[in-house]
Amino acid sequence: MCSPSSRPSLASDAPIGIFDSGIGGLTVAHAMAQAMPAERMLYFGDTAHMPYGDRSPELVRTYSVRIAQYLKDEGCKAIVIACNSASATAREAVAEAVGPDTPVIDVVQPVVGDLVARAVRRIGIIGTRATIGSGIYGRSLVAAMAAEPGDGLTDSGARVEEWPTPLLASLIEEGWQDHPLMLPVIRSYLDAAGWMTEGRATLDALVLGCTHYPLAWEAFRTVAGPDVELVDGPAIVARAVAQELDRRGLSSEAKSAKAADHQFLVSDLTENFKRSSERFFGTEIPLNPGGPWFKG
Amino acid sequence: MCSPSSRPSLASDAPIGIFDSGIGGLTVAHAMAQAMPAERMLYFGDTAHMPYGDRSPELVRTYSVRIAQYLKDEGCKAIVIACNSASATAREAVAEAVGPDTPVIDVVQPVVGDLVARAVRRIGIIGTRATIGSGIYGRSLVAAMAAEPGDGLTDSGARVEEWPTPLLASLIEEGWQDHPLMLPVIRSYLDAAGWMTEGRATLDALVLGCTHYPLAWEAFRTVAGPDVELVDGPAIVARAVAQELDRRGLSSEAKSAKAADHQFLVSDLTENFKRSSERFFGTEIPLNPGGPWFKG
Repeated sequence: MCSPSSRPSLASDAPIGIFDSGIGGLTVAHAMAQAMPAERMLYFGDTAHMPYGDRSPELVRTYSVRIAQYLKDEGCKAIVIACNSASATAREAVAEAVGPDTPVIDVVQPVVGDLVARAVRRIGIIGTRATIGSGIYGRSLVAAMAAEPGDGLTDSGARVEEWPTPLLASLIEEGWQDHPLMLPVIRSYLDAAGWMTEGRATLDALVLGCTHYPLAWEAFRTVAGPDVELVDGPAIVARAVAQELDRRGLSSEAKSAKAADHQFLVSDLTENFKRSSERFFGTEIPLNPGGPWFKG
Repeated sequence: MCSPSSRPSLASDAPIGIFDSGIGGLTVAHAMAQAMPAERMLYFGDTAHMPYGDRSPELVRTYSVRIAQYLKDEGCKAIVIACNSASATAREAVAEAVGPDTPVIDVVQPVVGDLVARAVRRIGIIGTRATIGSGIYGRSLVAAMAAEPGDGLTDSGARVEEWPTPLLASLIEEGWQDHPLMLPVIRSYLDAAGWMTEGRATLDALVLGCTHYPLAWEAFRTVAGPDVELVDGPAIVARAVAQELDRRGLSSEAKSAKAADHQFLVSDLTENFKRSSERFFGTEIPLNPGGPWFKG
């Protein structure tokens, strides 16, 4: 009655695995839910070990590989690394751990691809100490723009500069994204980076290289000024995930996923994470303890 | 030749074990080194799991007990919990784990004892979400002052109020303790707590209930005004440790410990921690990877 070809394959039915060091990656999950309403997600936030931005690269790799293996064991058809610090240091280790049949999408390469395709010229990148310390954005951009490495200046004349802004994630996590003090903190960082002239950022694009940052969109807009493009990582990543699933024939054939089909797990559940998760995902979600380190 | 009584016992020769979720506890270690120059210290900072202030009480207890057992196994004669979050939630579990022969000194009870002994009346307490959420300071103070619990008002008319200031540790960890923005952030918290009137804090004493806070002493002084006593936790705790060792006959009989005799271990070593450790301890120290989770 039901021909094999018209039946969704098991793989396309499977959820997309997505992880972050905490709940910041929920901004990526939210963008994915918007872009791919038919897909189910299994989200894991490693709240027991956050923030990855302060950890050594070795430790971030160890955690990331363990989580990716867990998500694959849970039947996920693709792995999304929704954490800039993990994308910067653990992408290859994760890809190797899950094997070539499971696509791995991180939050850095789609943004780099987008900027290169649109030939954006003056690019400033902000993120955690781990992300910026890794140099992943600058290196990838300069490489993709076929430039000489080292001076951040590409053959095409594009200029790529990176600056660590480690306090911003903490401020946003505390719900200070609209606090009046958010503006001078951002200004202080962009100023230290040498990007401010006459009260405006002298950039074509500011890459918000941390999943938390899009929540402070208005504050970045106010400080940077109206002419600087703010690069919306989560939306770009969601599109990249959709394209990759499509390319591999892994897209869900369901009409739409019910919100109840998503699963949201964290390695350490506190009241603060429960409260914040709604802010990051946009609607209330059921956050439960679980994941690779859970002994419940 | 050498009579047993004149020879230092093994126990008094042993180091004092001291731990924190990160490097903030180095302010306590520093105060101990000043107060007890003859004592050796084995410091462990659980940088792989910091900050404890954001973790659930269960997880903080699990980590703390594991660390205390490690320090005892390493031969420490006493355990100092140099972390307010761990003191608030894990003190009893740690004491039970190491047994009655190993004294356990936390950073809360000595401060409470000091305030009660001096009958300080209007007390404001700030700390991480975990510390303040536990209510340990207020509960202990109100109990010690023989008051009715609940309204924070003691029989003697003393008033005890607590307020969480979760961003301050992050700011200080980033070296922003002297940054101009530190002042409005502190002011914003003390204001929200209802402690500011006409630009000054209406308190007799402000308890800096986090090991990081004494580094921002000047900023707290500026915001609170000259009439508010800032309670210097590390110095009070160091005195309590010295008294407890003395009482138990565990004080070192050495003339003085060389700085090289101290050991400083962390569960995850990054460049940022290396840089910051000097700021927290006051002088350069050798920070090495090690401790209960170390597989080196």
